Amino acid sequence: MVKLIECVPNYSEGRREDVIEAIVKPFKETKGCYLLDYRADKDHNRLVVSLVGEPDALGKALVESAEVAIKNIDLNKHEGAHPRIGAVDVIPFVPLRNITMEECVEFSRKFAEDFHRRTSVPVYFYEESALRPERRNLEVIRKGQFEVLKEEISKPERYPDIGSPEIHPTAGATVIGARKFLVAFNVNLHTNDVNIAKAIARAIRSSSGGFSAVKAIGLELKEKNMAQVSMNIVDYEKNALYRVLELIKCEAKRWGVSVAETEVYGMVPAEALLQSTSYYMQISHFDPNQVIELRLLDLLGRD
Amino acid sequence: MVKLIECVPNYSEGRREDVIEAIVKPFKETKGCYLLDYRADKDHNRLVVSLVGEPDALGKALVESAEVAIKNIDLNKHEGAHPRIGAVDVIPFVPLRNITMEECVEFSRKFAEDFHRRTSVPVYFYEESALRPERRNLEVIRKGQFEVLKEEISKPERYPDIGSPEIHPTAGATVIGARKFLVAFNVNLHTNDVNIAKAIARAIRSSSGGFSAVKAIGLELKEKNMAQVSMNIVDYEKNALYRVLELIKCEAKRWGVSVAETEVYGMVPAEALLQSTSYYMQISHFDPNQVIELRLLDLLGRD
Repeated sequence: MVKLIECVPNYSEGRREDVIEAIVKPFKETKGCYLLDYRADKDHNRLVVSLVGEPDALGKALVESAEVAIKNIDLNKHEGAHPRIGAVDVIPFVPLRNITMEECVEFSRKFAEDFHRRTSVPVYFYEESALRPERRNLEVIRKGQFEVLKEEISKPERYPDIGSPEIHPTAGATVIGARKFLVAFNVNLHTNDVNIAKAIARAIRSSSGGFSAVKAIGLELKEKNMAQVSMNIVDYEKNALYRVLELIKCEAKRWGVSVAETEVYGMVPAEALLQSTSYYMQISHFDPNQVIELRLLDLLGRD
Repeated sequence: MVKLIECVPNYSEGRREDVIEAIVKPFKETKGCYLLDYRADKDHNRLVVSLVGEPDALGKALVESAEVAIKNIDLNKHEGAHPRIGAVDVIPFVPLRNITMEECVEFSRKFAEDFHRRTSVPVYFYEESALRPERRNLEVIRKGQFEVLKEEISKPERYPDIGSPEIHPTAGATVIGARKFLVAFNVNLHTNDVNIAKAIARAIRSSSGGFSAVKAIGLELKEKNMAQVSMNIVDYEKNALYRVLELIKCEAKRWGVSVAETEVYGMVPAEALLQSTSYYMQISHFDPNQVIELRLLDLLGRD
């Protein structure tokens, strides 16, 4: 069965249409590589691509795409609201189908070697691929952005993981690593009191003692006249969506508030939803391969 | 985007391994045709194949497979527990992806013409493809089986829909039609009183005034010491699984009984589960294309 990796590379270009199209071209033209979506943000001056690929095809297309980005982007002249250290800023690999996290880490290491050989851009490993514990956190690597890193890269604590301790003069450095699928999940409450949403967020999130794989904040949704608990579930296998939702309902009861609606934002793997289906419907022994489309995906990939 | 049809052809051969393998061979070898499963039952003396295909590829493989079955099966010598009128007994087409029921009906008509031209076996249309209302029901067409049909086929009420009113001497007749996906869904109760399961089945099934697309019976599960409401949901878009489950819970309360577990048996389309996920999780505006594997299926099919 074919191995599939999801990848969400981020490029520091959100304004020049021709450059954006040239960057995504290899993803459209490489067999075994499937472009799901790409969005350029002018304010962030950043391009976020969502794609899936078989390992070899994905690696090949990513290097080609990086070469285009590096040729066209000069970080010395780049301005944008989003923090960045590189023309190719971050390349995360997510195990999607028939591949383990360990294999994805191994793939990220091999890919990074190849990427560096072809581009001379220094590489930092993050998340599951991190070689230094503090570098699991992207923001530690990106601290001070391109402008500070080009001065500090010669300090041992900021040495890159691949390449000599010198910044690429125009393309900066690139962060590469394997991580789990991140699910964006929002819960809207039957109240416009943002303090209730904030209190619930504190109760359920990892940073204040809640679920280990949940990041959460409380927001006010003015147009809906509702408060929202806005979340990233960074490991849905550990913290299933149903469990997070049920705890939110439980906390909300404290103020006599109920859940109005929820929102799954952007892409989500089938398994993240099916585990909740099985819980609520009390399905015993559900095998994802019973889902005809999931079975079919493996069969189609085999051609 | 590629159109995909699910098909579950039934053949009157469940004992001779070599014939079974020869029947399924075209499904394994035809590009654009994906064999999900095949099960032969010796007592039923019947082969049930589960496959998915692009329309043209599916039609081609089905005719080739039918020719093998017709060459090897003589219904005059066939015995088995399952009712049948043909060597190729039933060919149902189910719209799976990027195809409507109307297109599936049209496909079944064109396929049946081709099938008859190549095999000389008379054809009856059933379910959504039926040309006579009573023939929507498979059992009306199959009444008395091969042995009775070969006498009665010359009566106007039993004339085939395609072909002259004469049975194929060894291969009988074949039933062809488009239908919806059938979901097998069982609910086990925290009681071993089968009468409670039977009463619930009566309350929820179409035949006694319940949900229009639900067939249900009450059974005793001796090894589990539980009673079961065993169901076929013949149109999950009309009668969502969550709604059926919640009504069963509601009826069961009448006897102070709760649901122990449920079971989705065999293949199920993602949508049949996702509509229940959206209900229980209160997800507003969920688009199935947010499920990464479903998006990918369309992209993979495009190669």
